[in-house]
This record gives sequence, structure tokens and C-alpha cells, in this order.
Amino acid sequence: MRLSRYFLPVLKENPAEAQIVSHRLMLRAGMIKQASAGIYSWLPLGFKVLRKIEQIIHEEQARAGHIAMLMPTIQSAELWRESGRYDDYGEEMLRIRDRHDRDILFTPTAEELITDIFRAHVGSYKDLPLTLYQIQWKFRDEIRPRFGVMRGREFLMKDGYNFDLTKEDALHAYNRHLVSYLRTYERMGLQAIPMRADSGPIGGDDTHEFLVLAETGESEVFYDSEITDLKFGDREIDFDDHAACQAVLEEFTSRYARTDETHDEALFNQVPEARRRTARGIEVGQIFYFGTKYSDAMGATVTDDAGTKVPVHMGSHGIGVSRLLGAIIEASHDDKGIIWPEGVTPFHCGIVNLKQGDGEADAACEALYASLKALGLDPLYDDRKERAGAKFATMDLIGLPWRITVGPRGLKNGVVELTSRRTGESEDLPPEEAVKRIAAIYAGAV
Amino acid sequence: MRLSRYFLPVLKENPAEAQIVSHRLMLRAGMIKQASAGIYSWLPLGFKVLRKIEQIIHEEQARAGHIAMLMPTIQSAELWRESGRYDDYGEEMLRIRDRHDRDILFTPTAEELITDIFRAHVGSYKDLPLTLYQIQWKFRDEIRPRFGVMRGREFLMKDGYNFDLTKEDALHAYNRHLVSYLRTYERMGLQAIPMRADSGPIGGDDTHEFLVLAETGESEVFYDSEITDLKFGDREIDFDDHAACQAVLEEFTSRYARTDETHDEALFNQVPEARRRTARGIEVGQIFYFGTKYSDAMGATVTDDAGTKVPVHMGSHGIGVSRLLGAIIEASHDDKGIIWPEGVTPFHCGIVNLKQGDGEADAACEALYASLKALGLDPLYDDRKERAGAKFATMDLIGLPWRITVGPRGLKNGVVELTSRRTGESEDLPPEEAVKRIAAIYAGAV
Repeated sequence: MRLSRYFLPVLKENPAEAQIVSHRLMLRAGMIKQASAGIYSWLPLGFKVLRKIEQIIHEEQARAGHIAMLMPTIQSAELWRESGRYDDYGEEMLRIRDRHDRDILFTPTAEELITDIFRAHVGSYKDLPLTLYQIQWKFRDEIRPRFGVMRGREFLMKDGYNFDLTKEDALHAYNRHLVSYLRTYERMGLQAIPMRADSGPIGGDDTHEFLVLAETGESEVFYDSEITDLKFGDREIDFDDHAACQAVLEEFTSRYARTDETHDEALFNQVPEARRRTARGIEVGQIFYFGTKYSDAMGATVTDDAGTKVPVHMGSHGIGVSRLLGAIIEASHDDKGIIWPEGVTPFHCGIVNLKQGDGEADAACEALYASLKALGLDPLYDDRKERAGAKFATMDLIGLPWRITVGPRGLKNGVVELTSRRTGESEDLPPEEAVKRIAAIYAGAV
Repeated sequence: MRLSRYFLPVLKENPAEAQIVSHRLMLRAGMIKQASAGIYSWLPLGFKVLRKIEQIIHEEQARAGHIAMLMPTIQSAELWRESGRYDDYGEEMLRIRDRHDRDILFTPTAEELITDIFRAHVGSYKDLPLTLYQIQWKFRDEIRPRFGVMRGREFLMKDGYNFDLTKEDALHAYNRHLVSYLRTYERMGLQAIPMRADSGPIGGDDTHEFLVLAETGESEVFYDSEITDLKFGDREIDFDDHAACQAVLEEFTSRYARTDETHDEALFNQVPEARRRTARGIEVGQIFYFGTKYSDAMGATVTDDAGTKVPVHMGSHGIGVSRLLGAIIEASHDDKGIIWPEGVTPFHCGIVNLKQGDGEADAACEALYASLKALGLDPLYDDRKERAGAKFATMDLIGLPWRITVGPRGLKNGVVELTSRRTGESEDLPPEEAVKRIAAIYAGAV
């Protein structure tokens, strides 16, 4: 993309309404614009990152054998009355009357609707196991929306639902989601720690939240410092292998790690003192096993191999997609702006032309741009007639991990400058080498 | 995907509530399930087609230089009061009160919000031309939703908005959209005819609807038969070239083609009688130029090169994304089921194992499946223990354009059977040739 033809409304001033750094930087980098309280438009740069995050989630869900679908945002109140949650849910549920005076609502979560789909179409244990998921907009009418996309009212969520014949199979689905989520977050450059959590209105006993450590996190967290040394990394895993998934669960959840909601001081004190940590964390996902809570209430049964009708065991599993952008920025920024991890960066690299209008500089930039595009890469070329300082400030603010700077002086020596946003380190090298370097960096991540 | 692990709840019976063939086939093929009146869940097969259509739109919008973003589904009523449309819009607008008793609404279209974003961020003619678009869920509270996704209440729409300094530039944007839409629909296997239309609540004088001819169309259309011979085809076009885009507009709109809303009997009678046609059509898109209607009302101005503040010229441009699935099926089906055009098919081909459990047949199917996947193709392998007849019926119903049938008898002769869903013609050929043939078919469409 050429910046002269893009829509990137960066702000010079810090917006007064933003209390936390991710909110401030998303506004300043022209990623979002508030439409009304807790509701945002995703400007082109923000939308690109949102799509990258969605894409990673879709890929990792497919890898785990989960099947994508989509449920509507507006639901009838009927199903919620059937499960008993219509009255329970409180004022956070956006309740609506349609023109025929029927009670409808903007869905905050979809256990009821997916259970309804399941009971209508699945009748036999032979069709299990089954895990369906969607990435869809949800609404929770927060009394005091704040922190930008971190606690908005309209938000994008991945929500998945597993249906299994037995508790054992459903617990495997739980473990499979845990493994899948570890992979998913790591691909986004995040360390998200599974912590024992409270189930809230979803219900059930088994639940873990995934938390990203950040000063601005809304939860206080307590953990054994050994946990931050764990990496899922490149290991191959067979998602059908119960024991392998269970082993990952044990590895990542056996050490103490809890939010203030479930914190147990006595247990925590059993961790050697040198390893006890308290910090703040941002919740970016949660997994639940809740057994037959919804299948009992709504009559979602299958026939088992003895011909008996039994309620299915279920769980639900969520990733806060839109809030992940905030979490990633909270975890990865500096004074100058955002620093995108390669896995989610909106553009793979920036090209800064120090002397727009200079024949040689323009030609070199065009050639770089074309070479990168030909390799399937997505560069952002700052082709505006602006001072170099302003161009650097914009690139630093929007946080592309790599920048190629092109100027007449370097070109005389046959080189351009390749700069890492994270380290600030620069290197002079021939343009074709810079292209190769960028391609190599993204070979695993594109 | 292996069918044994997929969620494809096909129905044997014709659902009583479906009056038109696309609705019936989408329900029977397990693509959608009604959640409440006019509101549907997109089951995995339907969701896959929806995503393919979205992807084509994104690619074609990018080709035309339009920039993707995303606006929220819920908007404040304030902006709609500013434009004067809050009261005008009538009962089709879903009006909501939030917990603080503020008037909000589920957006049926986004002229107001995009104009608000524009006026907040763009101040100079140097930032023009600019075209922003989104693909987002909309809601219109139809008094009598019907025909499945063709006239639903919650529906997915691509809506784009151009901002230009002059009327001339804005009319180029209009033409550019017309060209882009012709390409877009053809990639989906559809002939969509631009017809002079009525602007309705959007406003403006210049507007064309795109209609797909189909017996079940909601509009009566009148046209010169020469128009159905026009194809956009593979021609290359420079979307910045005003004259080239204008020429396409003229080519595709100079012959008589109107819906009943704008039909002019006297004009129509000037078409030679042998070429006069009346038929029914499904509206799948519409483009508008409405000048300064919203920019005047909402103060969206830019400074021109003389330093004078002038209101921007705008247009908006929509594609009915979810209803396109219905339109494609209305235009492409037979007694047995759907016939997907290659550009939007949910899977590239089916693999039918005639004797699941037979070592050789299973191995041959697995090898085919692996070879197709290795080429980046997406096959659906029916690996269920079902009769051949049931497997064929499912494949015909869900409409994959190509089927490879594998059975012990053919394998003895070293062949599998490749069948075209459209023609029903079959050919015996070695498995590796079948793979090559499928790859070649999709080389342009994948």
C-alpha cells in the first residue's frame, strides 16, 4: 500500500479520553475511532490487525479439528428463557423489542443457540465428538465502558462449543482447547498464562482464564515465577491424543497461577518465596467445562451405543479477539509507539523515501515495493512529500517491525538501511539483500 | 475435510416453510438454520461459501483501490438525527434503548457514521479521492421476512463510500464501482445486469441496481436482450482511468434495462420487438451517487486548492453478501440440488469412496485426498459407511462442481471416475490424472 492513497489518520496529540497506553496508541495510530461509548469503528490499520488475528485463530482452530460457522448477533429471548439465563443475565444484556413487540437481544454469548442447533440436528453418539466455533460480534452493555477496545460494549469474540458423549471426552476437548490456545497466543507474540478461574454466568467447575501480564491489567494475579519460563514453541501435537493433550495441561497448569477471584493465600505460600509473584494481568481468553448444564435444561441428548438417550457433555471456549489488539499493544510498545510482533503486524515492513520526488530515490523505492509485493509480502510505502522526521515518527507510532529507509546518500553507495523497530538497530545493505532479509524473517510467519 | 468429522446436517425432506428453491436447498444442504424470523445461523457449509464470497469482494475492492475497514453494528441515534434520517427511516430500523436510556440502533446502512469519520479526520483535497468500505452485518426489521437469506432481517452487506472533491471525480468513483462490481459478480459465476433504479431512502439521482435474472426474483425487469450477451471477461482495466471506466459504464448501461420501479413503457417500445424481454430479477447490489446530501447535512468539507472549504461529493455502493448465496443457487441448481460455480464452491471437489472399509479403496481415497491437499485444494472426502446412492445424493445436493468416485472395480483397472456436477458427464482416468485435472480447473479460480 502507498501511504498517499491509504487512510491513516494519525493524531499528533494524546487524546484526553484515553487512560491506558493501548487505547492512546490505537487512537493516535489511526486504528480505531470511537463511535459512541464503548463502541468503535475499526479504521483500515486496526481492521488489518483484527483480520490477522482472526486468521491465526481460524488456522489454529482448524488444526485442532474444530469447525467454523457463524451465528447471528440478534437472538430471540425464547431460548434464553429455556435455559433460565434470560432473567439471570442482568443489565449487561442488551434487550430489544422488534416491531412485532417480540423480545429479542444482542447476544453476549451463544451457549443456548448452539445447543439448539445441536439438538435439532444431532441424535447419535456416532456424530460425536463435535466442536463448532465462530468469530462474531457480541454486545455487553457495560455500565462504564473504558480502556478502549479492552472493555468495550460491542466486541469481537471467538466462541467455541464442544459436544461429547462422556465427561472424559469433554475433558479432552477442554485440554485440546488449552493446547490450541497456547499455540494461538504464541503466534500472536503473546505469553498468555492459563490461570484457574471462576466460571461466572457460564457455569461449571473446570475453567481456566488466559492472562497476559501487563501493568494495566484489570485483574491482580498471583503466580509461581517458573510459569513464565514455559513455552509451547514448535512442538508437534496430535490433537486426538488424549494423553498428549493432558500432559500439556499438566505442564502449564500444575504451578500456582490464579487471579484474585480464586486466589488462595495458603496454597500460594507453599510456593518458595523467591518464586512468588504478584502482578496485573489482562484476560484474553477462557475455557470452560460445564458438563450437562445446558443439555439438561434444553434437552440436548444423543443415543449412546446401548441405545440409551443421554445428555451431551459440553464446554465453551472463548478468545477476546478485539481486546487482543489492546493486550498485544500493552505488552509490546515503547515511548514512540506500538511494536507489532511479526505474526500480527498490519504491514510486513515500511519503506521510507527520504527524498520523495528525487528520481533515483523514487525509482529505488518503487523497485523495493514491487520486489516485496512479488514475494507475497505487504509493504507500506511512505511516498508522501513529508520531512524524514515526520515519516520516521509515523512509522514508529504505527509500529511496523521492520523499516527500509531509502535516500540519495545511501543509494550512491548502493545501500538502503534496514531498521528493527524493536531494537532500533540499523544495518546498511543492498536493496535486494534487504528484500531477502525481510522475506526470510516472515518465511515462518506469513 | 473428512465428512465423518464434519458437521453437515442434510435434510431428506423438503422443509415446509421454504417457498423458493434457494431457501429449500440451503436448508436441505445443511447450510443454514433459522434462529428466529428472518435471522439465520450459518452452518459450516454455508459459512464456507459466505467466506468465499467475502474474499472475492475483498480482492476486487482492493484491485479497485478501495480500502477495507469496519464499523460497528450498534450506533448512536445522534448522527441519524443530524442527517434527518432517524425519523424518516420508519419501522425497518431496529431502535434500541441502552441501560442508560440512550437511543441506539442496529445499523441498516452507514452513510452517517462514515461521514462522521471523514469529517473528523480529513480536511484537505490532497487526501482525496478516498473510498472506504466494509463487510458487516446489518439489520432491517422487515415486517414479513421471507425467502430465507434473500429477505432476512439480519444480513451481511458490503457497503462502500466514496469521497471526492468534485462531481466529476465522484462520478468516476461511481463508474469504478460499476466496473468493479461487474468483475466481482462474474467471478462468482453470476451475470448481474446493471439497471437504472430508484434511490429510495439513500437519496440521489444516479443509481443502478445489479440484478440477476431468476424466476423467483422479487422485481419485474424489462430489458433489451442484447444486454445478456455482454461479458466483462478477462479484460484488464486501469481503475484510475476515467475514460476507460466511463466506456464500460456506457457499454453496460446504454441498452434498455429497468426494474418495474423505473420502467418507462414508451422508451421500452423503442427497443426492436424481437429483443424486448420481461423477466424477474434478484437485486444483488446497488450503486449511488448522491452528491453533497450527507456532507451538507453533516458539515463534511475539505479545503480545495484555492483554500476554500467545499462539501465533499459522495456516493455509496452496496453488495448484498448473504443474499448472494440465495441468488447464486436460484441461478444455478437442478432437481437434485445446488450446482456451485467454481469461484464460490465450498469444497473444490468431493471424493466418494464406494466401499468404505475396503483396504484398497480406502488407501486410494486417502492418497487422492492427500494429493489434492498438497496442491492447496480443499476436497470433501465422504468416508462414511453409507450406501453409494446416499453418498451420491449428498454430493449432488450440496453441489460440489466435481466428484471423484473411487471403487474396487475401477481400481482394478487403475482408474477412478471424474464427474461434472453441471453436465453429469463422467470420465474414467488414473487417480493422478484426476488430481491434475481438478488442479487445472481451479488454477484460475483458487
